[in-house]
Amino acid sequence: MKSDLDRLMAERDLDALVTLPTEHDDPYRAYLTGGAHFSGMVVKKRGTPPVLIANVMEVDEAAKSGLKVYNNNDFGQSEIMRQHGADLETAIAEWYRRIFTGLDISGRVAVFGVGDINNALHLVATLSEKLADRVEFVTLKPRDNLFNAAYETKDAAEVERLRDVARKTSAVMRATRAWLAGHRANADEIVIQPDGAPLTIGDVKRHVRGLLHEHGLQDVEGMIFAQGRDAAVPHSRGEADQPLRLGQSIVFDRFPRAESGYFHDVTRTWCLGYAPPEVQEIFDTVQEAFERSMEMCKVGLSTRAPQVMVCEFFESKGHPSVLNSPGTDEGYIHSLAHGVGLLVHEAPYFPTTADLYTLKAGNVFTIEPGLYYHSKGYGVRIEDTVYLNDKGEMESLTDVPYDLVIDLDR
Amino acid sequence: MKSDLDRLMAERDLDALVTLPTEHDDPYRAYLTGGAHFSGMVVKKRGTPPVLIANVMEVDEAAKSGLKVYNNNDFGQSEIMRQHGADLETAIAEWYRRIFTGLDISGRVAVFGVGDINNALHLVATLSEKLADRVEFVTLKPRDNLFNAAYETKDAAEVERLRDVARKTSAVMRATRAWLAGHRANADEIVIQPDGAPLTIGDVKRHVRGLLHEHGLQDVEGMIFAQGRDAAVPHSRGEADQPLRLGQSIVFDRFPRAESGYFHDVTRTWCLGYAPPEVQEIFDTVQEAFERSMEMCKVGLSTRAPQVMVCEFFESKGHPSVLNSPGTDEGYIHSLAHGVGLLVHEAPYFPTTADLYTLKAGNVFTIEPGLYYHSKGYGVRIEDTVYLNDKGEMESLTDVPYDLVIDLDR
Repeated sequence: MKSDLDRLMAERDLDALVTLPTEHDDPYRAYLTGGAHFSGMVVKKRGTPPVLIANVMEVDEAAKSGLKVYNNNDFGQSEIMRQHGADLETAIAEWYRRIFTGLDISGRVAVFGVGDINNALHLVATLSEKLADRVEFVTLKPRDNLFNAAYETKDAAEVERLRDVARKTSAVMRATRAWLAGHRANADEIVIQPDGAPLTIGDVKRHVRGLLHEHGLQDVEGMIFAQGRDAAVPHSRGEADQPLRLGQSIVFDRFPRAESGYFHDVTRTWCLGYAPPEVQEIFDTVQEAFERSMEMCKVGLSTRAPQVMVCEFFESKGHPSVLNSPGTDEGYIHSLAHGVGLLVHEAPYFPTTADLYTLKAGNVFTIEPGLYYHSKGYGVRIEDTVYLNDKGEMESLTDVPYDLVIDLDR
Repeated sequence: MKSDLDRLMAERDLDALVTLPTEHDDPYRAYLTGGAHFSGMVVKKRGTPPVLIANVMEVDEAAKSGLKVYNNNDFGQSEIMRQHGADLETAIAEWYRRIFTGLDISGRVAVFGVGDINNALHLVATLSEKLADRVEFVTLKPRDNLFNAAYETKDAAEVERLRDVARKTSAVMRATRAWLAGHRANADEIVIQPDGAPLTIGDVKRHVRGLLHEHGLQDVEGMIFAQGRDAAVPHSRGEADQPLRLGQSIVFDRFPRAESGYFHDVTRTWCLGYAPPEVQEIFDTVQEAFERSMEMCKVGLSTRAPQVMVCEFFESKGHPSVLNSPGTDEGYIHSLAHGVGLLVHEAPYFPTTADLYTLKAGNVFTIEPGLYYHSKGYGVRIEDTVYLNDKGEMESLTDVPYDLVIDLDR
């Protein structure tokens, strides 16, 4: 968790961290500043709190973090640009030099952020050359990224934010279920609106976006509401003009973000009106895999263990899985889970082939087994976001009924 | 524009471009694929159309681009992970090797994308070492980034998308103005809701978000609705619980994104009920600067020229500017304009101190002069997004009245 950062820096022999200025959403910046709305730089020297460097227009927003805020000109940006503006590389290196000198930083510095990759490659190459007398820029293996290690366990303030986004997202899912149940179908088993027009996936998504908006949730990466064959392609978003039909499996996966920056991730599979027996059967199998996973996960376990357990369980029921049929595009074709926080996908991951992560108290992660058969026209996934709490209990943050069939109003 | 990419690659002696897989919004990927919804890789060999490499779950979405799509396992990802999973660096390098071999790519390759900076630094360092026999990874100076050069001028398909987001954003601005005009104020000059409660900035933002939602616009980076002293800090977002008051300058800056990925950027300054004479005076000065800029911009002009013209114009009226008072936090404290497209801020920029960009037919950019006095409690900015069209005319894409005062319903 966040309080581990100084220890994690010491273990990697890092003297300072820098997050680069960027106008993109940057979870590193959000993590270090508690979600300040500014596009500037964050510098954390080991053993001291982060400081923010903002342009003059964003100083007020940056100050809401409660952390020390400098403006760009405290380190002479305007003056340097005036002097070296035609040679941007020299100008930028000089500005960073004044920042590092002013904040008394030297030694091993790691650079983070989410932003333009070519620009960052160029900046770090430039600074590595021009500031070599003072700073060594260090790149960490992704697996050694100390933020990922910190993100893996959540402190009380983060869990509160994760509970909040879970409550709001669950309310949207329940309201969507109730709204669908209020529809009727025609003689062709097509779900219709009050005026008799078919209810399409586009209509559903518009309705869901309205619900998200009401609950203050952001639809950062779109949503999955996929029916029939599309439901069998786990990340297919569904075709907007496709009408909903009775008896089709619908995979509805939501992963919105709250104003706090934290995500929630939940999936339900629904059949409107009735479920064909083969869909009910794989649904029951997936639900059993979900329950077995919830029971198995405990502090100290390698995350590979529940992934392999689910693969073997599905294979025992005759379904191919990524364990013994790598590259399969039917059956169980992804991993069981991933961490959730300021990133919708973060550590711990649940790989099939290597012991890379161990479950810890404070983890918040999904459990999301699924089975997919595009050749048969159906897919099923069940997903909650769970908190492995201080007592070592698996506590689901999601509060949405699991039931497959939604009885329509007919 | 997009059709320039092969020429721009040749000028930089690049044999191929790669955009790295990322779950973040990536304008490079959006540009190359026409906005495909997938998180995988795009590879463009010079002289051939881009190809997409998607995980098996995203192949269908990637295929909507109309471009050739491979899945990760076409280049052996699962098999490689199985073989080298414990040594991720070797595994990843081997996967890239198979991609480059399979697509017959060698020579100078530049890497693009918007994503995790530490991971990208590490990946490129790893690949540079392990694939040195085949590929030289090239980093471009930000100013030489060929995408920025391509983005600078828009083709007809892009202009159509920019017109679309302009129409929708303008409709939201006009509707907000009309909605505000429908309110009353109490004896203390506080704007009130029908039930007599004060109308706060938070209420306005909620209403605006609803309007954005109705028009299918995304609020990617928040909005600015800042009153009085906050209006004098150009990027202050305003305090949610602050009630609206008559006679205060309100800076309302919207920069939403449409489903197409394209942005629109517009600012209006409003006073509810009446404008104090000093606010009206600086408003008139800013409007004159806006009109002079619209008249001055033409094909072939350095973008520094209108910026300097506006600085000098403001200084002639007694306002400090960044030209002769660099680092000032009152008066005219930013630059006149920036390009708008898949990025809300892109080339051409309008610097004060160097001739870096020349206006071209096909540019789409803002014009946004402003004057800010936090010590006096007011600020004014006027901003349209304009298209310098094929005929060399400055055509505003924004359609929102400029008027400062909104007469209330009282």
